[in-house]
Amino acid sequence: MAEENTVYIGKKPTMNYVLAVVSQVNAGHDDVCIKARGRAISRAVDVAEIVKNRFVQELGYKDVKIATEKLPSLDGGSANVSSIEIYLSK
Amino acid sequence: MAEENTVYIGKKPTMNYVLAVVSQVNAGHDDVCIKARGRAISRAVDVAEIVKNRFVQELGYKDVKIATEKLPSLDGGSANVSSIEIYLSK
Repeated sequence: MAEENTVYIGKKPTMNYVLAVVSQVNAGHDDVCIKARGRAISRAVDVAEIVKNRFVQELGYKDVKIATEKLPSLDGGSANVSSIEIYLSK
Repeated sequence: MAEENTVYIGKKPTMNYVLAVVSQVNAGHDDVCIKARGRAISRAVDVAEIVKNRFVQELGYKDVKIATEKLPSLDGGSANVSSIEIYLSK
């Protein structure tokens, strides 16, 4: 899947990301990927459910992947952070 | 899957739930389900990843389900809350 179909979830209000995902679909993409790390994972699930239930009912879950990413920490070591990738498609 | 294999994630420290999941596996269950709602979803993903990577390496993800639950709210209406079910199995 191309990077352009991917929406990264951060700390902005949930509806900002919902709009971003809906825009991807309206731009003609049949697949969208929602990615998030750490605390933003809950918000990613909210975004996916709101898009699917309220805006683009024909979307379904193609895959949900869970993983751990090693991020460099400020003290030179590394920290493990959970991540999620939610694949929605028509 | 029987209810006894299910670990519900709440607001306690992550390692409490990791221990609960590992105990299920050690009690002879080959499948464990981790369920969470709302903000606890991020913690559920952490729990699954920690169990899989650090404690029971032979576990893999069988399925990850995302849904919305309608909960009654205090004012008599209802609130939509996202939920996740993570199925781990040997």
